[in-house]
Amino acid sequence: MLFTQTLIPTLREVPADAVIASHRLMFRSGMLRKLANGLFAYLPLGLRSFRKVEAIVREEMNGVGALEIKPTVVVPGELWKESGRWETMGDAMLKVKNRLGGDFVVSPTAEEAVTSLVRDALASYRQLPLTIYQINTKYRDEIRPRYGVMRSREFSMKDAYSYHADEASLDETYQAMAAAYRRIFKRCGLSVIPVRADSGAMGGSDSEEFMVESAIGDNTLILCRDCDYAANVEKASCKPEAAPQPQASPVPALEPIHTPGVKTIEQLCAFLKTDAHTFIKTLIYRARNVALDLSGAPGASGLAKRKSAAEAPEVYPEAFFAAAIRGDLEVNEVKLAAVLKASEISLATDDEVERLTAAPLGFAGPVGLTTIPLVADLTVAALQDGITGALAGDTHYVHVVYGRDFVPWLTADIRTVVSGDRCARCGGELYEKKGNELGHIFKLGYKYTRSMQVSYLDESGQTCIPLMGTYGIGIDRTLASVIEEHHDDEGIIWPMSVAPYQAIIIPITYAGPVKALAHTLAADLEQSRIEVLLDDRNERPGVKFKDADLMGIPYRVVVGEKNLARDVPAVEVKRRGETAVRLVEVSKAEAELSRLVHRELDC
Amino acid sequence: MLFTQTLIPTLREVPADAVIASHRLMFRSGMLRKLANGLFAYLPLGLRSFRKVEAIVREEMNGVGALEIKPTVVVPGELWKESGRWETMGDAMLKVKNRLGGDFVVSPTAEEAVTSLVRDALASYRQLPLTIYQINTKYRDEIRPRYGVMRSREFSMKDAYSYHADEASLDETYQAMAAAYRRIFKRCGLSVIPVRADSGAMGGSDSEEFMVESAIGDNTLILCRDCDYAANVEKASCKPEAAPQPQASPVPALEPIHTPGVKTIEQLCAFLKTDAHTFIKTLIYRARNVALDLSGAPGASGLAKRKSAAEAPEVYPEAFFAAAIRGDLEVNEVKLAAVLKASEISLATDDEVERLTAAPLGFAGPVGLTTIPLVADLTVAALQDGITGALAGDTHYVHVVYGRDFVPWLTADIRTVVSGDRCARCGGELYEKKGNELGHIFKLGYKYTRSMQVSYLDESGQTCIPLMGTYGIGIDRTLASVIEEHHDDEGIIWPMSVAPYQAIIIPITYAGPVKALAHTLAADLEQSRIEVLLDDRNERPGVKFKDADLMGIPYRVVVGEKNLARDVPAVEVKRRGETAVRLVEVSKAEAELSRLVHRELDC
Repeated sequence: MLFTQTLIPTLREVPADAVIASHRLMFRSGMLRKLANGLFAYLPLGLRSFRKVEAIVREEMNGVGALEIKPTVVVPGELWKESGRWETMGDAMLKVKNRLGGDFVVSPTAEEAVTSLVRDALASYRQLPLTIYQINTKYRDEIRPRYGVMRSREFSMKDAYSYHADEASLDETYQAMAAAYRRIFKRCGLSVIPVRADSGAMGGSDSEEFMVESAIGDNTLILCRDCDYAANVEKASCKPEAAPQPQASPVPALEPIHTPGVKTIEQLCAFLKTDAHTFIKTLIYRARNVALDLSGAPGASGLAKRKSAAEAPEVYPEAFFAAAIRGDLEVNEVKLAAVLKASEISLATDDEVERLTAAPLGFAGPVGLTTIPLVADLTVAALQDGITGALAGDTHYVHVVYGRDFVPWLTADIRTVVSGDRCARCGGELYEKKGNELGHIFKLGYKYTRSMQVSYLDESGQTCIPLMGTYGIGIDRTLASVIEEHHDDEGIIWPMSVAPYQAIIIPITYAGPVKALAHTLAADLEQSRIEVLLDDRNERPGVKFKDADLMGIPYRVVVGEKNLARDVPAVEVKRRGETAVRLVEVSKAEAELSRLVHRELDC
Repeated sequence: MLFTQTLIPTLREVPADAVIASHRLMFRSGMLRKLANGLFAYLPLGLRSFRKVEAIVREEMNGVGALEIKPTVVVPGELWKESGRWETMGDAMLKVKNRLGGDFVVSPTAEEAVTSLVRDALASYRQLPLTIYQINTKYRDEIRPRYGVMRSREFSMKDAYSYHADEASLDETYQAMAAAYRRIFKRCGLSVIPVRADSGAMGGSDSEEFMVESAIGDNTLILCRDCDYAANVEKASCKPEAAPQPQASPVPALEPIHTPGVKTIEQLCAFLKTDAHTFIKTLIYRARNVALDLSGAPGASGLAKRKSAAEAPEVYPEAFFAAAIRGDLEVNEVKLAAVLKASEISLATDDEVERLTAAPLGFAGPVGLTTIPLVADLTVAALQDGITGALAGDTHYVHVVYGRDFVPWLTADIRTVVSGDRCARCGGELYEKKGNELGHIFKLGYKYTRSMQVSYLDESGQTCIPLMGTYGIGIDRTLASVIEEHHDDEGIIWPMSVAPYQAIIIPITYAGPVKALAHTLAADLEQSRIEVLLDDRNERPGVKFKDADLMGIPYRVVVGEKNLARDVPAVEVKRRGETAVRLVEVSKAEAELSRLVHRELDC
């Protein structure tokens, strides 16, 4: 391809809103342009690399027997109502009314659409396992799209869905996918951290996220210094505190103390001259769509389970809970929501807190709390002699003992793990990293197949519901992450597998024998299926070198008069990212470049 | 590929709503399933053929130097406001508000998005001509989606846009595209009728539609029996009537006659015992966004031109017109709108007609009409002695003469051509066919580049606006049309170029040496890059034969014990659509099939 016959509008200046390397370099190299906030267009150079990532993903999916299909991007809202996610997906799902008043969704994911197709097509156990995928446009209505295609509104996702007769079959596909994902990222030249992760609004269990480290990552990862433990902070757990030791002298009886105007932990620490480790912090949450059985729970007698739709599971549409945790720690809302089997939780408003605790703000506590169910963190159970709000103004309790002075409705791990906590597996020190999720695989179980009434006949003619798994990879984000991991101050340094071109030929002057040889060499290389860009612009060599570095094309071949005039005419060959420049005889250039390119492609 | 390892849910029964062959066969062969009205999912078999059409289109686009890009499907409404089409595209454009209240469009076409990218990237005349294309999801909110993917709401379109410094360059690309389109359809095995067509809401002139004949086509084509004239009825013209001959005796003076209760042409014919050829029919239209200058036109003194947006052209937002035509003919609203340079025209309401003609319904006429401008068809000018409504109840005029008794504001060709009219080019008889549009190319001129302020610097440093062309092909519709043209009662008969598989191997019993040979042959063929489906199902041979015919795979290879037991073991080879069954020696089967497949691919 001739440079002047394609469209590669390279830029010297950096776009003002581009704060990360991939965003900056995709713009500067002419790969990408912005249509609007969070909406980007790939120009020819960018599309070439995009298609290569797509092709790697497609190959690996076909390799594990997944079948490619092509549903629509706009799908009927009815399907989302069937699954119950019409209500629970939140505002990030772009809903549309068409001219006839019908509800539609610009797909953020496709569990519903694919499951509805499988429902139609599935009849017999003989068709299982069945794994289906698409690589298609998705839309999430991000409030603050940022970082170019790393967090855009519209993007391409490979999403696969598998259906199974039993757990063993689901697990087999899940493991095959996990292995395929590792191959995909390796082939793209990416170092990923596979982490167990909370599956959030997606539901289900047994899941793995494929993360890349990133300073602007929207996930916090908890990693162990001593073993390979890696988890998303949303789900990370740590070694629990030691159980309370029997004490020499018993803890004195519960005692109220007057704490005028003391409303925060900090004020209380100062007032009592102690530290936050001795406090029991109590927070009030509103939870939605709670699937946990609350019969017999405090204050829950007035609550009733309901269905939001015919096929939706029975849930409490709304319920309030108290969560107690050691004063120096934070409640992890994702873990708490998982404990409550709630679709969503959020802190109660000040008014609600005061109404439910019958006390002014700042004096909530577990002792005597009967209006709502209490969930205590494991750290509260481990506290020997605690301090807490007394459900009355300007009053706290001291000498509070778990089990003696209050009995929570549930005790569970709901803390947010932080750097310095100890690894539950090996006791090593945990630390944090920021990461971006590139892929996510998980076992959904019966969530969609049950609500959407998918069934098949087993060997004995019985009607059965299949198990399901789901497996996603963001194509754009994977591409951007390759650049994050492979660049320097001058530009991108493409791994061969996803480079837009494999070699660039730069004639020092585009005229005479130099021009002729540049064209001959380009034609020879293309004959050997090497993808070549020939920079035929009337620009100074310095400009062409800078652009070549910026675009990051692996092999740069410089054709100049001086080297052509040697006894043995030669061209200069340089690998982007390395400093060494080699002279290669003209007569051997095609064979040598072909060898170099294929060596990298094959590894 | 093994049949049992893919998903091809063939059906015996025909879906109730499938009235055309392609819709029926795409469903029955398991290529396609429905997600909702007008929304379809390609299953693996369908996607294979879809991708082949896509690949042919991509090859031919690359071949004419068009550059592939990938903009988003959801695009900002702002771009459509810039071009003025936010208002004029009508309800078929799916508009969406996002969570922040921003206006977005699910792209029905991409003149705006691509032009905005070119506006950013274009600096110098040296970058021209520039042709850009995408193959991407489009959405049109059809009220009555029908006929499967032939008229669906979501579909894939290849849309290309070219930018030029001058008319000669635009014409060169336009002609190259016209040739590429012919190659594309030929390669897909399609007989297309290229017709000059009205460009409708797209604007511009010099355009060509690529039609396939179809009983359910949404276009009417006018063709000449004697020459290659072909036009969309929306734009077709015919040989005008002969000019009135000077008459021996002059036409008598205009005379009102009493016609009580006579409101329709039919009633008038009966009443006056004559035929509709002698009448001047007058219709009142409301037109929107009229760009024609109306200063000095009857009744137009109160009208003022306005801009709907800063960059939109000045237009009259609404104006009424009368259109007069010979009584036996119909006004062609597309031609009338083109004459008026209006974005939209529709018949006025009964109330409006009575108000504007100051007469009861049924008595409109050109004589004495001063409230609105009158457009007369050429046939009215050719009428020597006409009859028409007299703008008063129960009254008509006879002996009406064009130019003597009334002078229209404009006289133009606004008739709808019908079968039996004479060809304007050769005088031959014109006839009608129904057709579906698969592709459309046209010269847009400055429409978008001007309203969206695209510019470049020419050789002398002057700022210039580029000319533009646009070129679309519906991928799904092209695929469905291949099936329409290539099928029989048993199923599809794929041309090799777009067949989902090139050969199907049917073992008569899937066991023993038959099974073994089927697998060996499949592996050998795949080695030679022949795409093979091996029907490994435990079904009766009859079921497999029926499905093979239904899926339309070009070569059927039957492996059976009887033929394997011959002195020279053989398999049966049959071309779908032909009746001859040939015995081919097992040892030569791979070479022979490879030869047969490649012979068809190469032609």
